[in-house]
Formats: sequence, C-alpha cells, structure tokens
Amino acid sequence: MPPLEFEPLRSRAMSAAPRPPTAPQRPSTPPPLPARLLLGPGPSNVPRSVREAMAQPLVGHLDPSFLRVLDDVQANLRTLFGTQNRMTLPLSATGSAGMEACLVNLLERGDDVVIGVAGVFGARMCDVATRAGARVTRVDAEFGTVLSKDAMEDAIARVQPKVVAFVHAETSTGVLQPVEEIAATARRAGALVVLDCVTSLAGLPLALDDWGIDAAYSGTQKCLACPPGLSPVSFSDRAIDVVTARATPVQSWYLDVTLLAGYFGGERTYHHTAPISAILGLAEALRLVLAEGMEARAVRHREAASRLVGELALLGFEPLVRAEHRLPPLTAALLPERVLGWQDGAGASGEAALRRRLLERHGIEVGGGLGPLAGRIWRIGLMGDNARTENVDRLADALRAEL
Amino acid sequence: MPPLEFEPLRSRAMSAAPRPPTAPQRPSTPPPLPARLLLGPGPSNVPRSVREAMAQPLVGHLDPSFLRVLDDVQANLRTLFGTQNRMTLPLSATGSAGMEACLVNLLERGDDVVIGVAGVFGARMCDVATRAGARVTRVDAEFGTVLSKDAMEDAIARVQPKVVAFVHAETSTGVLQPVEEIAATARRAGALVVLDCVTSLAGLPLALDDWGIDAAYSGTQKCLACPPGLSPVSFSDRAIDVVTARATPVQSWYLDVTLLAGYFGGERTYHHTAPISAILGLAEALRLVLAEGMEARAVRHREAASRLVGELALLGFEPLVRAEHRLPPLTAALLPERVLGWQDGAGASGEAALRRRLLERHGIEVGGGLGPLAGRIWRIGLMGDNARTENVDRLADALRAEL
Repeated sequence: MPPLEFEPLRSRAMSAAPRPPTAPQRPSTPPPLPARLLLGPGPSNVPRSVREAMAQPLVGHLDPSFLRVLDDVQANLRTLFGTQNRMTLPLSATGSAGMEACLVNLLERGDDVVIGVAGVFGARMCDVATRAGARVTRVDAEFGTVLSKDAMEDAIARVQPKVVAFVHAETSTGVLQPVEEIAATARRAGALVVLDCVTSLAGLPLALDDWGIDAAYSGTQKCLACPPGLSPVSFSDRAIDVVTARATPVQSWYLDVTLLAGYFGGERTYHHTAPISAILGLAEALRLVLAEGMEARAVRHREAASRLVGELALLGFEPLVRAEHRLPPLTAALLPERVLGWQDGAGASGEAALRRRLLERHGIEVGGGLGPLAGRIWRIGLMGDNARTENVDRLADALRAEL
Repeated sequence: MPPLEFEPLRSRAMSAAPRPPTAPQRPSTPPPLPARLLLGPGPSNVPRSVREAMAQPLVGHLDPSFLRVLDDVQANLRTLFGTQNRMTLPLSATGSAGMEACLVNLLERGDDVVIGVAGVFGARMCDVATRAGARVTRVDAEFGTVLSKDAMEDAIARVQPKVVAFVHAETSTGVLQPVEEIAATARRAGALVVLDCVTSLAGLPLALDDWGIDAAYSGTQKCLACPPGLSPVSFSDRAIDVVTARATPVQSWYLDVTLLAGYFGGERTYHHTAPISAILGLAEALRLVLAEGMEARAVRHREAASRLVGELALLGFEPLVRAEHRLPPLTAALLPERVLGWQDGAGASGEAALRRRLLERHGIEVGGGLGPLAGRIWRIGLMGDNARTENVDRLADALRAEL
C-alpha cells in the first residue's frame, strides 16, 4: 500500500476548528479567479458558449428536453470516435474513471491482459487491471517512444490474452501511438482491444471501427475544450457480448456498462443521476467541433504544434519525441540548461520556479513532467480551442522575456 | 447478470448512419431548455450565482487560486457534515460513486458487513458491497419505515461485522432514519459505520463526529442546490487507518482514498484531474448555505415540507411515512384514486401521465416511486433553494387545476 500523503489530524489545514453549523456565517464573496492561458496537459480553456451552456437553468436528468440533448451528445461522440457503437456515452466521472470502466467491465479475476506501457497512463492501466484481479503482462517501451509492434505481438502470441490495452495518445510523453497493426494482431488472436484516447479525441480523427477497437475512453478537458468531469467512452457490441457473458458481476456498480445501458441505452431508465450541466456543456462543445469539421480541427492542431516546436527550438528546447510520432495536441520538450538553472531572483530556481513565474507573471500554465520525466521535460498542450499559433507566440514571448 | 436493457445495433437510435467526421457540419443551435421547477427527488433548481460560478473561465486543477477554493470547499463540507475529518472532499463523480467509494475502501473480499435496507438505496449498498466481495448480512425493514434498532443490534451481535452501513435519508421512501443508537451499537461491537447522507446534507444539521460515523457520502444535486456531478464524502481517521492497513489494494483505483489523499490532502499532487467548474459551483453553493445558516435552512426545509403535507392531504394524498420519521427535503405520498385513474383526454392515463402533464403544462417535475413503490407513490422534493412554501402553493395550484 502506498503511504498516506496527507498530514495527521489537526495539522495545518485543521488548525482552525470547523465553524459551528448553527450560526449564519457571512463568508465574503471570493475574489475572481485570475485569467489563465491553459497550455498544460489539460484542462484547456473552455469557449464562452460552452460555459454558458453549462450555466443554463437545470432540467431533470429524465426530462424529455434533456434526453434529446443526450441523444445528440451520444450521436456526436460516435462521429468523433469514428464508430457506430451503440454504447457510446459520456461517463459521469473523469477520464481515469473511463479507463477503469473499460478495464473492469472486460476483465474478470484471473483473466490475462497484455498492456503496452510507454508512459504514465499505460502504467496506470496496469494498476487498474491488477486491482481488478487480472494477470497483467506488461510490454514496456522507453518513455518518449512508441510501443514495439514486435514486442506486443510476441506477448500476445505467448499469453493469448482476453484483452490487449494500450494508449493512443500518451499524455505523459506526447507520443502518438500507431494503432492499426497492434489492434489487428490482437484481434487475430481473439483478444478485445482497449484504447486510451484521452488526448486524441477531437484533436485528430479517430476510427475505432476501422481500427477494430472494442473499448475506448477519453476526457472532456483536452481537445474537446470542456471542463474536466466527464469521460466519453465507447464499447463495441463484441465487448458488450463479453460483459453480458461474464461469470461474475462487474466489480464496480457505478461503472457496470450493463447497468449504464439502462440510462444511456434506449430505455432511459434511472441508474444514477447524470451530470446534467456538464453534459449541456459537452453538447455545445461537440456542436463547435462538428461546425469546424474534424479535418480542419486536426490541421489547426498540427499547425499550432509545428510552430511550437520551431519556437521552442529557438529557445534551446529539444523535442522528446521523434517527428513522426509526435502528438499534435501535446508537445513534450526536453529542458535546456537555461531553464533547469533558471533563478527567479528571490531564491527559487529550476524549471518549477520558471513554470510558476510563467503562471504568475504571464498568466500561462504549462505542465511539468510526470514519473521518470519529472524535472526533465515540459508538457505543452495546444488543445481544442487553444490550438492556435497566436497562443504559441504568446508563450514564446513570455519565455524570451524570462530567459 | 441482469439482461442488457438496450436495443441491438442499428435499431431506433442507430437508424441514421453516423455523420462522417471529415466535413464541417452546420448543426443548428439547439432550442433553449424549458423552464422547470424541479420538485422531484433531485436535481433541485440551482441558484443563479452557483451557475455563474460554474461558468467562470477555467484555471488549472493545480493552480494556487483553485487550490484556495478547494481548501474552502473542504473546510465548509466539514462544517456541514459536522466533522473534523481531514479526508472530507468532493469526489469527482455522483452520489452513487460516493456510496461505492465508502464501501470499497473499507471492505475487502470476505469481510462481513451488516446493511440496513429500508429502501432502494439500502438495497443498492448491498449490491455494491457484494461486488466488492464482502459477505453481506441484510436487515430489512418495510419501505416507508425506519430500521429496527433491535434487528440491527441482533445482526451486529451475531455477525460481528467489520462495517455497518445504513441510510440516513432514504431518497426512495422519504424516511429519516435515527442514527445515534445504531451507530453506537455498531461502534461498541468494533465496527466501522457508513452513512448515506445524500438527501440530508445541507437540508438538516449533520453531526458525523458526535454520531460516530466513519464514512459518509452525499450528492450535490439535492439540498446543496448544485448540479449533479460531485459526491461530498468524508472518512474518519479510524477509517483511514483501516484502509491503510488493508491486506489487498482497494479494488478501484479511481476511488482509492489513499490515492485521493495525494490531491485532496496536504500535498495537492496529481491523481486525476478534478472537475474544476463543478467545484467552483459547489464553492458558491456552500457559501450560500453558510450565509443562511444551517439551522435557518433546516427550519425552511421543515416549514415547506409541513405545508406540502397539508396541501397534499386536501387533495387526497396520504403520507407514506409516519410524522416523526419524515425527511423534510423529500416527501413520499401515497397516490389517491383520482391520481391513479387520471386521464389526459388523449388516451394516456395513470400517475405517470399526470406527472408528464405537470411537467409539460405547468413546468413542474415531481418524482415517481422506485422499486416496490413504483406506481404507488410520488416523491416530492423541496430541497435546497426549492424548499419554499411558494413552490408548494404552485404545485398545489397545478394539481387542483388538473384533478
């Protein structure tokens, strides 16, 4: 078990006793939040019309007017995922819960799963699958590279797994993994294929059906340009058949797709109360994506990323990932000496201090590295509405001012 | 396994092929949602300032400005729960996931749990605990009544469970369960106590610490008057100690409180991306609750419920629950013959048709019965901002017009 990472009772955050619940307080209105350009690994900035859609007065989660919105959301998610999967829906939790939903529905205790790990999110899949009682065969690749097709093929041939899982767009490294060959190998071996599309959905065209993917998940706070809180997921009919034929119940009631089907399928019966406002925001975000067109949107993401790599090179940053495997919505860059040794003049130094300076003085958020890449790279997101060359220029200007 | 409740591929919702992802669409702006007075079992209507708080431009989930908001949210949730529990936080999913979080953290495979079942949500606890591999001893009470202290005591003495779980405010029956004696019995037997506070938090004063509760969960869409999407949860230090000492990992990565502690404890390190906008809304909702004062808010809920029971009696509805056990935020009423036999003049009849008429003609949502009470009761919520006598009058006027 990992150690608890919080302080014991009555420490810092508990030094003031809770206020008594009986007397009315006069809490002051909090100060407005600072304006931020969110160029980290997500969330990205959310267009005004999406925020206004979320702020509409509520209707019920079974109200016919809301169910029409939900119909549209599910249809438009199918379009973006490139699938006809009936069970395509916005799960009522964040992207990590989408990962868990895909794995715990398909895996029973003792099942074999082969997982490709070329970053933090591949490793997270292994943790989730292990907790579900699966036997995990892990195929590692160096962070910043793609998975080896041969290594995946060898593992699949050796293990004959029920499920093969890997990450399309590795948010910890900025690698875009080629999907088709590994997925085809897995399907030839009779395995179900699970794909992490957290940082690819709505940033590049997806084709779950053509690729032969059985379960995929994403998040709303990346290229969809919504707030975090929902996880678009999609299950193929083949996957649903496997879930229906399980010998044991899905370990999670909340994520059990056979129960979710009651609400997100044709019946629209109560399972849990769907996050109405977040779904209203997602509906508007999907409308914006389709109005732009997925091809144009992908071009915009590629052009912004290309300009970013060029600007970073002028500042001494080196891309972590080879050009042909870069994920346009998220660029990982190795930090030059002048960033690693940067000093703020008040005693703080290093890349984290510079990130804080960018945030506080320039209102720009960029992301640090995760896992073995912590302190070595920055992760710069140009996702959704933010994938614009003028945002690259703003970041480059801020960096030039500080370096 | 329950059967899948959705139609096969290419049926109704699939008859139109997905739109191709390549060409820009010109989806029309959807029509505005109808105005609704939400007097069902939740969601309730959300005050404008809460909706505006959700619509603020985003900041990052690790931004210092957001972490200050999160500090306030956690402190104010402690106040409303009546606890000093450090691990008190808004879980990034709806109330049902809060239930699952409490149970799967505390229960390992083979552990004994005694669960009081006097409604649908007690029964749901049994399902969740069973899926976690626990041995469930179920103590049933008739829907509409409280749990028997003696029956719970007998079961606890017999089973010597690790966990005792029951529902404070049963959203399916409108029963307010007395907590203290059962909780004291459980603690004397060395058990951890889990309490469902979904429809009580912010509607009546809670005192988790005084009552001896080890894990509690709620939802935001009831008396807190937020949209659905978050589940306030609280774990005692005693509960955290038990989780830390588990022999096996918590089956859910997403709900593992020892991992959630990384972000919601003192370190504020990344676990998953918190639903920023929903938490901004919750912060404002908590500010409104504390500005009103919990006592005044509870009085308002009681007065509204009292007027509702009186108005319903005039119309022939009979309360399902004895006066001393009624839950002010949610009134369950047995339907009179004139409701059961109501006809809309266009061929539809029965209580569901009348509910639809209330919705479509009067803009008022009320809830039907769940489980064995489906078709026999209505559930009328006067929760959060909606707990006002003028809303009762509006519903009564609408009913008089239709009956």
